[in-house]
Amino acid sequence: LSSPANEIPTLVADAGERAIIELIRARIPAAPPEVVVGIGDDAAVVRPDRGALDVFTTDALVEGVHFDRRFSSPADIGYKAIAVNVSDVAAMGATPRVALLSLMLPDLLAVEAIDALVVGLLEMAAAARVTLVGGNITRSPGPLVVDVTVAGSVRPRRILRRSAGRPGDTLYVSGTIGGAAAGLAWLRADDGRSDDPAEPAMNECVRRYRRPEPRTRLGALLGRTRTAAACIDLSDGLADGISQVAAESGTGAAIDADALPIHPGARDWFSRSGDPVIPSLEGGEDYELLFSVPKRAKGRLRGVIREARGLPVTRIGELTTEPAVRLVRGGREEPLPRGFVHF
Amino acid sequence: LSSPANEIPTLVADAGERAIIELIRARIPAAPPEVVVGIGDDAAVVRPDRGALDVFTTDALVEGVHFDRRFSSPADIGYKAIAVNVSDVAAMGATPRVALLSLMLPDLLAVEAIDALVVGLLEMAAAARVTLVGGNITRSPGPLVVDVTVAGSVRPRRILRRSAGRPGDTLYVSGTIGGAAAGLAWLRADDGRSDDPAEPAMNECVRRYRRPEPRTRLGALLGRTRTAAACIDLSDGLADGISQVAAESGTGAAIDADALPIHPGARDWFSRSGDPVIPSLEGGEDYELLFSVPKRAKGRLRGVIREARGLPVTRIGELTTEPAVRLVRGGREEPLPRGFVHF
Repeated sequence: LSSPANEIPTLVADAGERAIIELIRARIPAAPPEVVVGIGDDAAVVRPDRGALDVFTTDALVEGVHFDRRFSSPADIGYKAIAVNVSDVAAMGATPRVALLSLMLPDLLAVEAIDALVVGLLEMAAAARVTLVGGNITRSPGPLVVDVTVAGSVRPRRILRRSAGRPGDTLYVSGTIGGAAAGLAWLRADDGRSDDPAEPAMNECVRRYRRPEPRTRLGALLGRTRTAAACIDLSDGLADGISQVAAESGTGAAIDADALPIHPGARDWFSRSGDPVIPSLEGGEDYELLFSVPKRAKGRLRGVIREARGLPVTRIGELTTEPAVRLVRGGREEPLPRGFVHF
Repeated sequence: LSSPANEIPTLVADAGERAIIELIRARIPAAPPEVVVGIGDDAAVVRPDRGALDVFTTDALVEGVHFDRRFSSPADIGYKAIAVNVSDVAAMGATPRVALLSLMLPDLLAVEAIDALVVGLLEMAAAARVTLVGGNITRSPGPLVVDVTVAGSVRPRRILRRSAGRPGDTLYVSGTIGGAAAGLAWLRADDGRSDDPAEPAMNECVRRYRRPEPRTRLGALLGRTRTAAACIDLSDGLADGISQVAAESGTGAAIDADALPIHPGARDWFSRSGDPVIPSLEGGEDYELLFSVPKRAKGRLRGVIREARGLPVTRIGELTTEPAVRLVRGGREEPLPRGFVHF
């Protein structure tokens, strides 16, 4: 199935289902002992994590909705398909374990692109210690679709729900916000004319858009130490995450605009057309964790931050009894904008 | 979101993601106690089945590849999306427990169609005692896609693998074959001109194509009683199933053409253009179980058949030491045809 650069690439329509499955299987490393039956049977069989609960999430990347093949390489797309699911598992305080891959392939896609996609996918899976145990491939008469399900585990008392926030909890966010949105905005403005941005901060934004780093370690730490009450991952932006935690917890929230850890590249990019705060709050795909910490857990948070290996954790506001979700800047209040809308 | 017959239906593009999620949530019955966190958080949390292993499978239905909206109603599509996954779990000797639903929705799809799809999906889920615990919805710039993951459980010694067949094992198939393929052929020939076929056997074929009945009970019985060695479900036809069991088990197979339980509607339909045996062997989507029974388990098989509530189980041949996969009819041998190819 290989095709040197001077030959016409083999397309999905010519390769056939079995050959593509074999290509994928050949890339998969040996499974750990908890995988009793891996790829190749009617279903996978996995030993549950002893004493823990199962955690399940699914998230699809659809061409033309979630990615553009001019802006992301096949390896980036595969990498991100695992990353966005691992991020959801982390936001539950859980640890990811296995993944299933459902691929929908356009007839005219090169088989080499599928191979590269699988390499990127397995790179993120290895980083998150996730084993690919099964999946499905089918033709697509439309877009390329990479739909992934990840299963993980969590101890019963360590589950971080969106609804567990209480008035008076302090709100924290990991890492920085706005970077992925600025990276995508740069790619759209450039429209494939240039190589990656020369400017380091914007280059990092583009990389964050293409290859988000799920906060696997932080999520598990927040659950294990029972430091966080509510937790959510920022797939649809910080403003959306705050609104969802407040709504599910039955609280309001007050956010300090000056405290927001806006990515330097996002601050530069969005400042060109005005205020960088609102687009950084609205920008999706940061895949950071937003979490609330009750007063009694503040000491534990210091321990978590020490163990988080240099990942910044920033206090950005608090949950309030008053139901409004407000952005406070320069002593004045304004309503928080709505989040990023994929639909 | 409702739209009486005399109004223009609400489309996906106008309804928005949140409204569609709410519509789905409103349809979902209360979750059983093993579901600790259901729909609405970053991920679902489910208590594993005590003493059992987790089983995972995923299978997608893609418009234009697996279904045609002229031939299947939205409710049929939802029903089948769960059925095909439950069938894979049954083929492992396992019991299905929970499902995740990943929906990709074209902008111009009516919201009413999504509601009907979910009603059909929940009908099959209820029949198979499967709880919908999570999922994802997104726009599709192309086909409607219904991608489902089902998780179930199985005791370690009850797993039915494709590779567990041995020479001398007898091969059995549940129910009848060829019916779904004949039903689809009828629908294609009719091309939407008529209502459903008047002739009862063909009517049943069309129904089998639209709403396959996964052999949930038989699969679990075959595992629990350790009657079957190898087992596979017939998504891609009996010929494909036999070839896969033989290949994975390192055996050949000899199939008795006269013993095949061809659906009467399929026999009639395919006889019109010649021999009904080959198209019935090649026809996909029967979702019956093919399994091998070692000599020592024949007594147990009688017990399984008694408990299978009238579902026919037919002896169709055996696994052989000689590696060829052969169809024997009228004393002569021919190679078994290849299975149904979705790709």
